[in-house]
Amino acid sequence: MAVVAVWKCDRDGKMFDDKKAAEAHDKMLELAANITQLIENSVEGISEAHSEAIGLLLAERSDQLAKACKGKPEVLLEGTEDQSANVTPLASNQ
Amino acid sequence: MAVVAVWKCDRDGKMFDDKKAAEAHDKMLELAANITQLIENSVEGISEAHSEAIGLLLAERSDQLAKACKGKPEVLLEGTEDQSANVTPLASNQ
Repeated sequence: MAVVAVWKCDRDGKMFDDKKAAEAHDKMLELAANITQLIENSVEGISEAHSEAIGLLLAERSDQLAKACKGKPEVLLEGTEDQSANVTPLASNQ
Repeated sequence: MAVVAVWKCDRDGKMFDDKKAAEAHDKMLELAANITQLIENSVEGISEAHSEAIGLLLAERSDQLAKACKGKPEVLLEGTEDQSANVTPLASNQ
């Protein structure tokens, strides 16, 4: 047996075996926090629960969101309309 | 006097002298509508007024949002904290 490095994301305490995955997770949460902050600065009467859920929703889809911002808004709705149905994950997202 | 072409954005009826500006406005509203739709599909109990305000808020900042999604989340909050203060617009945004 030996000691092994594991990586903890400070923001939510999530643990990772892989440093890159931990950093990506941390970056995602930073994006989520900033989207939430922007919403709270700008949208009157929004609840914290809603603004946090939206920050996370969008940050988790940052690749799609970046494409949507670059002239392909339709990618944002791909695969969301029947999320509860029997959807096979795209290989490119794995 | 002569007739001149003006361009109307179907989505909100806004008029433009310049076709490119009209198309950019239409694209922005399409992005806003899709962000709103994604939020409404995914966030329980959000009001239509809030989801529409957030879609527009983010779509109006699509350049910053794209950069934020590409590893620079801090750009999302640049200039928002003291919007009411005496802020000089960046030349690069003009």
